[in-house]
Amino acid sequence: MTALAIAWDDIAAAQQRIAGAARRTPVMRSRTADERTGAQVFFKCENLQRMGAFKFRGAYNALAQFSAAQRQAGVIAFSSGNHAQAIALSARLLGMPSVIVMPQDSPAAKLAATRGYQEGQPHSEVVLYDRYTEDREAIGRRLAEERGMTLIPPYDHPHVMAGQGTAAAELIQEVGPLDLLLVCVGGGGLVSGCAVAAHHLCPGVEVVGVEPEAGNDTQQSLARGEIVHIDTPKTIADGAQTQHSGRLTFPVIQRHVSGIVTVSDAQLVEAMRFFAERMKLVVEPTGCLAAAALFSGAVKAPGRRVGVILSGGNVDLGRYAELLAMR
Amino acid sequence: MTALAIAWDDIAAAQQRIAGAARRTPVMRSRTADERTGAQVFFKCENLQRMGAFKFRGAYNALAQFSAAQRQAGVIAFSSGNHAQAIALSARLLGMPSVIVMPQDSPAAKLAATRGYQEGQPHSEVVLYDRYTEDREAIGRRLAEERGMTLIPPYDHPHVMAGQGTAAAELIQEVGPLDLLLVCVGGGGLVSGCAVAAHHLCPGVEVVGVEPEAGNDTQQSLARGEIVHIDTPKTIADGAQTQHSGRLTFPVIQRHVSGIVTVSDAQLVEAMRFFAERMKLVVEPTGCLAAAALFSGAVKAPGRRVGVILSGGNVDLGRYAELLAMR
Repeated sequence: MTALAIAWDDIAAAQQRIAGAARRTPVMRSRTADERTGAQVFFKCENLQRMGAFKFRGAYNALAQFSAAQRQAGVIAFSSGNHAQAIALSARLLGMPSVIVMPQDSPAAKLAATRGYQEGQPHSEVVLYDRYTEDREAIGRRLAEERGMTLIPPYDHPHVMAGQGTAAAELIQEVGPLDLLLVCVGGGGLVSGCAVAAHHLCPGVEVVGVEPEAGNDTQQSLARGEIVHIDTPKTIADGAQTQHSGRLTFPVIQRHVSGIVTVSDAQLVEAMRFFAERMKLVVEPTGCLAAAALFSGAVKAPGRRVGVILSGGNVDLGRYAELLAMR
Repeated sequence: MTALAIAWDDIAAAQQRIAGAARRTPVMRSRTADERTGAQVFFKCENLQRMGAFKFRGAYNALAQFSAAQRQAGVIAFSSGNHAQAIALSARLLGMPSVIVMPQDSPAAKLAATRGYQEGQPHSEVVLYDRYTEDREAIGRRLAEERGMTLIPPYDHPHVMAGQGTAAAELIQEVGPLDLLLVCVGGGGLVSGCAVAAHHLCPGVEVVGVEPEAGNDTQQSLARGEIVHIDTPKTIADGAQTQHSGRLTFPVIQRHVSGIVTVSDAQLVEAMRFFAERMKLVVEPTGCLAAAALFSGAVKAPGRRVGVILSGGNVDLGRYAELLAMR
């Protein structure tokens, strides 16, 4: 049995490392959610995390472990999503340069947010590339070589995975043992970290991952016993539009996740409406995956204590308004 | 000097009375809000209160003081807004009948929500009336007489006022002394209770009320030294569409509120967008009044510790989506 990329000690150390910087996000309850599902549901509100998503945990945990030389040269990341903002903000807080490589057709709001987090931090910038004619990996490699910067990938990195696991650790430390933990799955950084934390803190817990119906690569990978690659899935859950899980995350998922269920975009919209209407929370589509599995009946848990990670709340307001207005 | 309708002791007693039933709502911070205003801002999230607004505090505090005979006959209220739902829910929790008199053209969602809170409670119902041909006061009086029910008004009642004051009490008990407290003003139940609580817990605090530009009756009343009646104002802040403050609330406002500022509907929409985008919170237009006063610069508070009551989050989702999409 090969050693996994992370163990509980890594998550415990990450908790110490991020303590002053990350928010200890609230756990919320809803009588309506409990009545509808028959379960006791504990929502861990990572939409209320700094920069609006759990990604801050992993990014900060990774950057906080840079050597002095690495800090001086800074960090580089490719992302058009929450990872970009998480790296940019963490880098500024730790006083190091960041370069974020983003497609030139990224939404203006995301470009602005990322640049906003870089504000006042020297040698930090967003580098744009053309998705159709340029190779972002090549751009990244060139920049990393030229400037000596360290690349931090969005999920397939032990420090990132351990950081994400602190979300589940905090949840269980606050509310006590769970019977079931539901976590969304993109590249597997969040679910792998959370599963390791959960199994350490309450060994009997079942951890179930949730993917969009259109992009169930991890479900397929578990069935095959090897990492399956798919085309970029068409789903509103943009944080789960990954084509495959990671070389480091997948073995953790195999060991610690008992199964993957999927939900449709319509079920995500239903959950998003529920959070706005009943819990007064803005949750992005990807952040609704875990809850939608429970609300839709894809996972049934009557009488059980269920943790649900609401992974983030970053959604363009115009888009959010459109989704809320859908019926 | 006439005695005011409420004193600190009433609020302290209300805190005890509602403790098991009301939620101790979280206080949230936002670095962006602090940076933009130069203040330290503490948002008291009554949008996360049970039934989605502070109104639950006052309603429960009033109903919990009913005599055995009053409980048996039950409570009656006129309201198409948050007061209706607050009374219906409190009545069910306390095991008494409720009759809510609502206009027959009330939004379907509000009718459904009110009926939902009455579910399983015998002799409870929503009574509809025609706003153009019927007199709701007469309907209420008739029902109250026929059934022996007790009418609880939305703001002009000492138990309601004391209950609302627990919002500010909790805020200050949690975060410590404030320099300034901003509270929205409709009929004055919330601002009067909160002002009494605030002045008891931190005597030096300044309490400022915020009204919609279109409906500044309390501002006019303070200037004139008597209660001014206005036409029902046209504003998206439907919880502040009152025509005048109350006979009990106004003297408290005169004594404890240092001034009233106003904000426009456009400024409310800006604040609503801020809460959705930056804080991932759904706040209804009326709930944005206090914050909008600070964000718009109507109130300036650099270097000060400022409490802001977010009074509620109940807004029809379709309407909310429209407002978010506005520019």
